[in-house]
Amino acid sequence: MAASFFAPSRMVAVVGEDFPESYTTLLQSRGIDLSGLTRQKGRTFRWKGRYAQNLNDRETLDTQLNVFEDFQPTLPSAWISSRYIFLGNIDPQLQSSVLDQVNSPVLVAADTMNFWINGKAELLSHTLRRVNLLFVNDSEALELAKEQNIVRAAKKISAMGPKWIVIKRGEYGAMLFLEDQIFTIPAFPLASVFDPTGAGDSFAGGFMGYLALAKEINERNLRQALVVGSVMASFVVEDFSLDRLQTVNDLQIRERFRAFKNLTHFDDLSLDLLRVAS
Amino acid sequence: MAASFFAPSRMVAVVGEDFPESYTTLLQSRGIDLSGLTRQKGRTFRWKGRYAQNLNDRETLDTQLNVFEDFQPTLPSAWISSRYIFLGNIDPQLQSSVLDQVNSPVLVAADTMNFWINGKAELLSHTLRRVNLLFVNDSEALELAKEQNIVRAAKKISAMGPKWIVIKRGEYGAMLFLEDQIFTIPAFPLASVFDPTGAGDSFAGGFMGYLALAKEINERNLRQALVVGSVMASFVVEDFSLDRLQTVNDLQIRERFRAFKNLTHFDDLSLDLLRVAS
Repeated sequence: MAASFFAPSRMVAVVGEDFPESYTTLLQSRGIDLSGLTRQKGRTFRWKGRYAQNLNDRETLDTQLNVFEDFQPTLPSAWISSRYIFLGNIDPQLQSSVLDQVNSPVLVAADTMNFWINGKAELLSHTLRRVNLLFVNDSEALELAKEQNIVRAAKKISAMGPKWIVIKRGEYGAMLFLEDQIFTIPAFPLASVFDPTGAGDSFAGGFMGYLALAKEINERNLRQALVVGSVMASFVVEDFSLDRLQTVNDLQIRERFRAFKNLTHFDDLSLDLLRVAS
Repeated sequence: MAASFFAPSRMVAVVGEDFPESYTTLLQSRGIDLSGLTRQKGRTFRWKGRYAQNLNDRETLDTQLNVFEDFQPTLPSAWISSRYIFLGNIDPQLQSSVLDQVNSPVLVAADTMNFWINGKAELLSHTLRRVNLLFVNDSEALELAKEQNIVRAAKKISAMGPKWIVIKRGEYGAMLFLEDQIFTIPAFPLASVFDPTGAGDSFAGGFMGYLALAKEINERNLRQALVVGSVMASFVVEDFSLDRLQTVNDLQIRERFRAFKNLTHFDDLSLDLLRVAS
């Protein structure tokens, strides 16, 4: 959904019989190709959690895999030429199996989490070797790299495969590790955050969609993509579910991009101040 | 010490008989006016703590007020015209007594902490009414405002007096709340942080020194001051005590300012991408 604001999008996923028709209609209304969406006997994946009052920490109360449990992502044969791949946060073996089904993509990005870092380290390391860009939370990055410092962790993760690493820091924003540079963006300061669920996925969606729109993958576009991801995430948390993404428009997206500029911009030191008074 | 890189600096403080002569010599070598420094019978203030492995959280193991216990800051009479005042983190009543000794300063900034927020709320609120700019940690800002959200907290604190509020967020950087704008800066990502002690004070020192150098207090200079504060803090944590500030030079300060620019800069959306593809 977040990606569809910027580029034609395709989705591979599985849902159960309980999945509301209104959502597939919604996704289609944004031009998202759902030929990779399987509807299957049983119930859709469900997650239930409780957020701490700071909305940054959350506790899982219940996870029901349901139809997700035996999910084998199968791409429609026409999708073999898909160019921008985002591997959602699932079993690294399944992530690899998706890559087996595409032919020389331009960019392969992946998300992962502590569950796979601890439980399927070897399979994850196999997948990471095929990934160009990794999205990961800060605490999970430290776990993955067995480090205490995020700069050293990113360097180590980069040696595992991904050329670029996006560290998600919740209310503190995100960092992008390029080869020899670091770019940071704060989270958009909102006076009220309604529901942070899905912020990370919308972030990745906006990021990937913008890169596809910008076409060339270079430092300039990667930096802008991180801002666009933050823009989309900042809208999603303003309401439940996809509600805010149903009302947001292009003008508001561009305005918030500019608001991020105002939030982070400062002028170079003036020439007459360049000689610091020591 | 951090301020002295940018503007002539004066210090009001008390030390005991145990305070090493080498430090007063060091401060004087940077042109800092120490006529407000009292040397008194007894021992200097001491703090002992333990940092968590993330270096963001710390636990106080021992605090000895010593000569600081009966400290009554007295300004040399010539300092009545001091223009940029930074009230260090002490009893709000003493902060007020310093303000009683100066004549129409250009800027009054103050630091405070949970100890005074909880213990001397009324005196603190009295001081805050006389303060233009408050430096405060994020958790302390929430406590002071009795809020869960930092944007709402800053608005409330502003209603207590300070026109501008700097929220310090440790490894996550800092936020500056201007009247109707917010500016953020990340902490400088270092592969190894040696000792975070004194980072907040060096931050405030660099901030105040730069504002005095820039002369005019406007949005542009306040934003730059936040960056300069972050620059000075990023040097201090590279070594123990004032060690790094003894070796850092103007060129390195300017280079790190530019590094902060590179860390946060992104280009505006290109004209041909301005019409988001929806």
